[in-house]
Amino acid sequence: MQSPAIILIGSQMGENIGAAARAMHNFGLSDLRLVNPRNGWPNQSAIEVARNAKIILDNARIFSSVTEAASDIYHLYATTARPREMVKPVITPRKCANYIWQGMPKKSAIMFGPERTGMANDDILLADSIITIPVSDENTSLNLAQAVSVLCYEYFTYENMTPDKAFSSNEPAPASKQELALFLDNLETELDKKGFFPTTEMHKHMRRNLHNIFTRSNLTSQEVKTLRGVVRRLVGEKSSQ
Amino acid sequence: MQSPAIILIGSQMGENIGAAARAMHNFGLSDLRLVNPRNGWPNQSAIEVARNAKIILDNARIFSSVTEAASDIYHLYATTARPREMVKPVITPRKCANYIWQGMPKKSAIMFGPERTGMANDDILLADSIITIPVSDENTSLNLAQAVSVLCYEYFTYENMTPDKAFSSNEPAPASKQELALFLDNLETELDKKGFFPTTEMHKHMRRNLHNIFTRSNLTSQEVKTLRGVVRRLVGEKSSQ
Repeated sequence: MQSPAIILIGSQMGENIGAAARAMHNFGLSDLRLVNPRNGWPNQSAIEVARNAKIILDNARIFSSVTEAASDIYHLYATTARPREMVKPVITPRKCANYIWQGMPKKSAIMFGPERTGMANDDILLADSIITIPVSDENTSLNLAQAVSVLCYEYFTYENMTPDKAFSSNEPAPASKQELALFLDNLETELDKKGFFPTTEMHKHMRRNLHNIFTRSNLTSQEVKTLRGVVRRLVGEKSSQ
Repeated sequence: MQSPAIILIGSQMGENIGAAARAMHNFGLSDLRLVNPRNGWPNQSAIEVARNAKIILDNARIFSSVTEAASDIYHLYATTARPREMVKPVITPRKCANYIWQGMPKKSAIMFGPERTGMANDDILLADSIITIPVSDENTSLNLAQAVSVLCYEYFTYENMTPDKAFSSNEPAPASKQELALFLDNLETELDKKGFFPTTEMHKHMRRNLHNIFTRSNLTSQEVKTLRGVVRRLVGEKSSQ
């Protein structure tokens, strides 16, 4: 199991453990380790919140110290908002994702402290690096499960550097330049008939505007047909229907 | 208020609204808009989960439709996991952050559908782009508040990494969603008068097509005026000139 482990230390609320598990599952992580969860284990609130990710909870392992939980880990990261007087590299979540992928197949883990107090100094000591999630000065108190989500998301998207798709999957045929030109010619002719272009200068200007509008939208062939129908109908008689 | 608005449509659980508000506050967003929250408003569960971010809930505005909620928005994003048969750009959360910062000071908003069903097609129609959060095939069901967190986090960290913002002062003013809606309503009315929509089913279908065509082109305010003029002239009398 190459993907990094998530180590939750002394978590109080089952809801947070469940939400963390759900986020892990969403973002391709599966190895959850709990160090002294406060309200016992298994935990019903965790199961309810985890929903489809119950398997992550079922496979979670319980430890009584961070040292034990991290015994097979090569790169250990501690998440903490507060700057500590400790000589350790402080990195962003994205940098952490970068390190994790570079470090494979050696196993990494990311630790999170208890909800109220955050990570204890003695546990941070064990870490190779400190991760600080950038937050607004207005509210620096990040929910535990949200913090887990951000790290898991960065891990997953780092792998998945998905190029942006221009269109959704069932890509319809784009209109040819000729189809577009025919539509625009037709529109211009109809507008001219109705006296839309008062002067030659205005004609040139308006024509350019209309071309701009309809060229920019990357119309499909079907859409150009629709627009031709629209113009035909607008200038035509009321239908008998 | 430059930062993007978060629009939650038909959210069911107060806990999710509260957790979304907390993430917004963590990541420098403040403008929360709720369209028909299912369990009424204000909501005690939302307040408990929001904790320090109660101010976001206090200032949240309630709307009865997406059109109303987005009336002052220039760039509207819809988050949806499922690919729809709709010709709209599909982008990543990071790309969305990029677009939002580039588009400032024009106001953006990101929409999220109800927990169980996700966004309705008619609401997606109003969007300029679709955001799909990359998730593992193992579990594609992302919690609403986690999805909000990911988008807010990308927005905030994008800001932090790019001190140099792209200003585009000389660019023409984009049309507001309201201007666009007025044009589309007007076009629909005129087409209806002329019997363009033979059946209710066709009406719905054609309406969607027309919305897609004109939403995708990022029309400027001036262009919408031009198009309104085009329709007015096409249905009107021949000019006396």
